[in-house]
Amino acid sequence: METTVLEMAQRAKRASRELGALNTATKNAALLAMAEALAANRAQIEDANAVDLAAGRESGISETLLDRLTLNEARMRGMADGLQQVAALPDPVGQVLSGGRLANGLEMQKVRVPLGVVGIIYESRPNVTADAASLCLKAGNAVILRGGSEAIRSNTFLARLLATAGERAGLPPYSLQFIETTDREAAVALMRAAGLVDLLIPRGGERLKKSIMANATVPVLASLGGNCHTYVDASADLAMAAEIAFNAKVSRPSVCNAMETLLVHSSVADSLLPALCARFAVANVELRGDERVRALFPAALAADDSDWATEFLAPILAIHVVDSLEEAIDHIACYGTGHSEAIVTQNYTASERFVREVDAACVYVNASTRFTDGYEFGMGAEVGISTAKLHARGPVGLSELTTYKTILRGSGQIRD
Amino acid sequence: METTVLEMAQRAKRASRELGALNTATKNAALLAMAEALAANRAQIEDANAVDLAAGRESGISETLLDRLTLNEARMRGMADGLQQVAALPDPVGQVLSGGRLANGLEMQKVRVPLGVVGIIYESRPNVTADAASLCLKAGNAVILRGGSEAIRSNTFLARLLATAGERAGLPPYSLQFIETTDREAAVALMRAAGLVDLLIPRGGERLKKSIMANATVPVLASLGGNCHTYVDASADLAMAAEIAFNAKVSRPSVCNAMETLLVHSSVADSLLPALCARFAVANVELRGDERVRALFPAALAADDSDWATEFLAPILAIHVVDSLEEAIDHIACYGTGHSEAIVTQNYTASERFVREVDAACVYVNASTRFTDGYEFGMGAEVGISTAKLHARGPVGLSELTTYKTILRGSGQIRD
Repeated sequence: METTVLEMAQRAKRASRELGALNTATKNAALLAMAEALAANRAQIEDANAVDLAAGRESGISETLLDRLTLNEARMRGMADGLQQVAALPDPVGQVLSGGRLANGLEMQKVRVPLGVVGIIYESRPNVTADAASLCLKAGNAVILRGGSEAIRSNTFLARLLATAGERAGLPPYSLQFIETTDREAAVALMRAAGLVDLLIPRGGERLKKSIMANATVPVLASLGGNCHTYVDASADLAMAAEIAFNAKVSRPSVCNAMETLLVHSSVADSLLPALCARFAVANVELRGDERVRALFPAALAADDSDWATEFLAPILAIHVVDSLEEAIDHIACYGTGHSEAIVTQNYTASERFVREVDAACVYVNASTRFTDGYEFGMGAEVGISTAKLHARGPVGLSELTTYKTILRGSGQIRD
Repeated sequence: METTVLEMAQRAKRASRELGALNTATKNAALLAMAEALAANRAQIEDANAVDLAAGRESGISETLLDRLTLNEARMRGMADGLQQVAALPDPVGQVLSGGRLANGLEMQKVRVPLGVVGIIYESRPNVTADAASLCLKAGNAVILRGGSEAIRSNTFLARLLATAGERAGLPPYSLQFIETTDREAAVALMRAAGLVDLLIPRGGERLKKSIMANATVPVLASLGGNCHTYVDASADLAMAAEIAFNAKVSRPSVCNAMETLLVHSSVADSLLPALCARFAVANVELRGDERVRALFPAALAADDSDWATEFLAPILAIHVVDSLEEAIDHIACYGTGHSEAIVTQNYTASERFVREVDAACVYVNASTRFTDGYEFGMGAEVGISTAKLHARGPVGLSELTTYKTILRGSGQIRD
């Protein structure tokens, strides 16, 4: 098995040299051809998907997983729309990041270039096949995909369809490859193809990410999830605070930019919490509070330290009363994962201190953490949110799938 | 031991929170105070260094190593000058990288912030203690240094002196820490302090770098060395080509931006090589060529495949005749390490193809590869040259020792 994935990686590396030099128009034409291929082959995609769904039902996977696995018409249209949207995004390759003339006359330019070969390891959603591939290809990278075993027929069919359509429209062969086996060794071979795979991105649960970070010898861009906080300061507009906190938790509890812990300054806890907790309870959010929270809203369960450290990704909210801005910042430094953190305040100094001292990818003043997202930030589609500090922090879009080179044009310069 | 390095890392993490919020003036004052402390304590530094040198001589280390280990007056002045130069560089922290107003009114800014805690593992040169620390501190990072065992007394004395001077001038305690033991376990503990050390930079030979890349669980920024090429195209100005090639090899053969293989188009090999090879031979450069090179300059040794793959870091040069630009680009893709690559040509299309298709940190047209250097590029001092594609590629200066955060200032925005 290992040789096969290595061979795929070698082919990808060769393809990446051609891909990196392609014009934007050719890449866009390929993405649009892929979108058309999806539209023209809906019945066959559904057939392949039906085999996965039947096998899933037989092996007794959960309804949630079955739902993720399903490629209905709306999702197929979503994949095609996504390909068209990525085609419409500006091409990051060739962007001059900085430049100038050195004292010796060398003309220096820092220019954005593709990374080369990007590997994506993902779990049950087959639509990732199109979404992730489109971003990698638009950024000029060859891509090697490895999906979950439950979706193997759907993914295999989709990947072959997209690869063929892309190649017919001008992409070099092996620009898009899918690992058609579900052996674990194949995934490990991808993680260890050092020198061939320039970046590996895991998309899925924490277990997948941790396993990849522990095993990979190629560079990995991973997110540690989002244990996000909203801190309501002593000076907050409490009506605004209630709306922001409710939105940050309830609008979509299962995503990484949802709030997991609400921090409230003790001087406003009794004005804010009773009504807000009741509103959460009506929305079926399970509340876990410290003693002061439970004194104000006795229906809340008792929180312990593990609740402060947990990314629930569910309608569960931890609530903690603090006595100062410093205590809130310390709590976030201790338990936060560096994803998205918010303060609600009318105090200028408090807002500036929070923005400066909280160490996270995205720091909000008077807004919901739910905005951390490539689309919302105007970057277009994203392959994920990075909580790493190197290379990319926050949403990972087209630009984050590139690197740069420094070009120096001279006229015979030599160094003393 | 492990607990002690972990404790150091925890202290560094705490210090980094304060350091990140310091004003530029305070950081600069600390760097200048460190420079003064070096000047005021030369005799004691020499004493500590003398003990290292005596121990080195006793254990029979090489003259080269003894030279690297020596802190003479010029090198001590060099360290002090370096600190003053870094103080004079612009502060990267707080730089707004991009920004704008989102459709929903959120004011978004991407702002440069320190990484947090940077670890540096280095070998015999004690002046790295001051050089590396100054860049990390100026970029707002706490730094943990680990030096080579031969220099332990020099490094320990220097690090204590610098830390004390910095702290008196306003740096938080534990901003600069040096691991005063030479146990291997201490180094491994630093490599594995995940969540505490934000970036680890190895400075030294390939063995050190490879060991760190194999063992570290913290992010590492490493260079794979520089197997750099100069390609003399069919259309080159041959006088210019000879000057560039001679400079790229001879001006300083021991450094990573020196040329290791000269590629020559077959149509100009007989005009260029006999005289150029003779000039290299006079400069005591050992030449290793393919058959066509040896036909033109019989004194050259026969090169084999391992020569194309070797970073000699010495007055040795491999020479290979190619029949096309494509063959040169393929050779570089096969053997290059992605550091610095040059073409000498008068042909516009050849120059553009080389620049676009060669995948390296720095790509030169009609200039010596020896310019790849933070000072030459106008970045000021550097902690090394990265051949990685993620985060930083090429010289690693102050900006590359930072990350960014996205700040979003709102007025109650919530997501639909």
